[in-house]
Order: sequence, then structure tokens, then C-alpha cells
Amino acid sequence: MRTLYHLWLSPFSRKVRIALAEKKLPFEMKFEKTWERRPDYLALNPAGKVPVLVDEDGFVIPDSYAICEYLEETYPEPKLLGGDARARAETRRLTAWFDTLLGGQVTNPLVREKVFKSFLKMGQPDSAVIRAASENIRPHLDYIGALAYERNWLAGDEISLADISAGANLSCCDYLGAVPWADFPRAKEWYARLKSRPSFRPLLADYIPGLPPPRHYADPDF
Amino acid sequence: MRTLYHLWLSPFSRKVRIALAEKKLPFEMKFEKTWERRPDYLALNPAGKVPVLVDEDGFVIPDSYAICEYLEETYPEPKLLGGDARARAETRRLTAWFDTLLGGQVTNPLVREKVFKSFLKMGQPDSAVIRAASENIRPHLDYIGALAYERNWLAGDEISLADISAGANLSCCDYLGAVPWADFPRAKEWYARLKSRPSFRPLLADYIPGLPPPRHYADPDF
Repeated sequence: MRTLYHLWLSPFSRKVRIALAEKKLPFEMKFEKTWERRPDYLALNPAGKVPVLVDEDGFVIPDSYAICEYLEETYPEPKLLGGDARARAETRRLTAWFDTLLGGQVTNPLVREKVFKSFLKMGQPDSAVIRAASENIRPHLDYIGALAYERNWLAGDEISLADISAGANLSCCDYLGAVPWADFPRAKEWYARLKSRPSFRPLLADYIPGLPPPRHYADPDF
Repeated sequence: MRTLYHLWLSPFSRKVRIALAEKKLPFEMKFEKTWERRPDYLALNPAGKVPVLVDEDGFVIPDSYAICEYLEETYPEPKLLGGDARARAETRRLTAWFDTLLGGQVTNPLVREKVFKSFLKMGQPDSAVIRAASENIRPHLDYIGALAYERNWLAGDEISLADISAGANLSCCDYLGAVPWADFPRAKEWYARLKSRPSFRPLLADYIPGLPPPRHYADPDF
């Protein structure tokens, strides 16, 4: 069985979960406590991070960038990058935007402060960092709303890895109650469409014992 | 003329410079002071970062990931990602390693403290950050040495984007005198091979007035 090593609120793990489901590739998930630095896991991925995908034939692929490009090459339909080199360039530009800017300015600091430090007691959470991340999310929601309004999906007519990366990040933030949807109706309309896709539904059923999501998290009419 | 917007000690800009030169694609460079947030530049790349490539036909591609994948698709020879999906997965895994781990733990903090804060007077440099980055570089040099010793180049028999990303990062660190080559002879041997390639030579001629590199920076027998 194809296996994905993941963490619940890792946006890169969620990105691969959605991509696999859009391509209708069945997989099982293994929860990996990366901070324990398990030797067998480091043998799979010396970087020690999630996600890692082990494909049906045993081929090991760490890193969401390497995994998503491998999936697109190996299981090309439905396309998640676009139909030609220019469309793919636009999808990749936006995917990098959400992976690094939305991830770096918003998702990662929120998860670090609220989950690792506060919930898992790995440190003293810094409320200034949480406030900054909660402010930083606003221009991203504005940009997502504008792109979705102009283009239907973020990189063009069809859903792509750009939507998947943005949705993976926002779903983590939403689990932590940190998305001001009411102020961004266009981004909200796009996210409602994403939420209604079968590929997204398993994420909405995620539930961390002791750290429940807000009620609207799983609701398609939020 | 194909145009690359860049900054001198941006590892992502250097990565694209080397990739273009390996593919023998001529280009001119424009120095972009990204911190000035020039409106015409933000129209090219709303993320406001370097690099941005404008191809001969005027097509605009921001982000080194999008650019390098676009170059590989549009100008496939010589290959920089590998010959099949598995080889490409390994190249991409390592490229992501050097882009995000070596970049995030070493190059970016060094450039921020030594260039932006200290040289350009944009802030008070933090010597603890410089010390941490100078320590963090060591496991990367060890890993590079081990890969190069086992495989010839980092991802396999041939030079690839993995070598280019690692070299782009290390060349920035080396410009700042922060690479302890003497302790890592295998990584040094690999870097000497990289330095002797025509694609790498223009980087060795880089010279920032007022912030000269150490003498060994441009020397192939360093």
C-alpha cells in the first residue's frame, strides 16, 4: 500500500494528501513525530521532515515539491500543474508563493506557537508572533480572492497545485481559528468550493484529541 | 534579450544564473533593489522578490523553482533534473534541501546579518545569529562531501540542479568568508570542480564595491 508519513497540521503533508486524492491514488497515512528523530525515519528522509511518500513499489520520495512533481509525471491525469509550460510556470509561481510566503509568514508561526509550544508544551508561546501572523494572513486572503474572482481557480480555469497549496495552508490556519473569513468574501467563496471537493473532505474530518477545531472548520456552509 | 532581475548575494538568483549558463542561454542581468518595492517590478512579480526571468519572447517567470522547471521544459538539453522520474525526484529532493535547509539555516541569516544589516546599515547585526549560521553550515558540508564522494555529483553521475543549488548557496557564504573548507576536503574537492565550470565563473567575478570577497573566493585552487 502507498504510504504517506505526515503530521496533522503540516501544510506540506496536507498538500500531498489533497494531490493524491485529486489523482484518485489510494494511500494510508502514518503519523510521524518528527521531533523524536526516529532512526528508521531518518533513513527514509535524512532531512527528518514530513511529508515522505513511499509509493506502491517501495520508491521513497521526501519533500512535497519532489512528491507533487513526481506524482504529476508518474500519474499525469488529472493534471494538477497545467497544460503547457507557461501554465505550469504560473501554477508553480503561485505554489511557491503559498508554500513559502503564506506558509512562512502565517501557517508555520501559528502552528509553532499554538500547537508545538502551547498545546504540546514545547516552549513558551509568544503572543506577539501570533498577532503578527494573524495580521499577515490578510493580504494573502485578499490576493486569493482577487485571483479566484478573475480566473475561477487560482492559476486558471481548472483547479491546480496552487489551489491545493493555498487550501492546505489555510485549512491549518482555519483549524486554529485564525482565518477572518467574514472580511474576505471572495476568498471564502473559493474556499467553500474547495471544501466541497471529495479530495478535501478527509482533511475536514481531522481531529486532534485535546485540540478541537472551531465548529465552522468542517462545515461547507461556514 | 533574455533578462534576469537579481541581487548579488541572493542564492536563488545565483541558481538561475548557473542554470541559464549550463543551458548556454545568453541573458543580461538587472540589479533590483527589492527593498525599494518599485511599482514596475511589483507588476512583474507581486511577491517583490528576486529572481525574475523575462524570456526572449517577453514571458515573465518569477521564482527560482518556477524558472528552473520552465527552463528544463523549454530548453531540455543539457538536462539539469535527470533522465527519468526517479532521478528527477532525487534531484528535486536535494534541491529543496539546499534551497530551504542550507538557505534557511545558513545563507539567508548570514546575508541578512552581514550584508543587509551590517554593510547596508539596515539594522543592528546579531553576532549570535552569525555564530549559529557558521555552525549550521558544518553538517551540510559533511552531507555534500558524502554525496559527492559516493556519486560523483550530488544527485548522481551528472551535474544537476542539486549541485547548482548547493553551489549557489555556498558561493554566497564563501563570498562572506564563512565556509570552513579545510575541515571538509570532500566537499572542497566537489566545489573545486564546480568552480572550474564555465557556468560558475561569472559568479566568481562578482564584486560588491566596499564589500570585497576573501582572496580565495575566485581562486580555483583555494
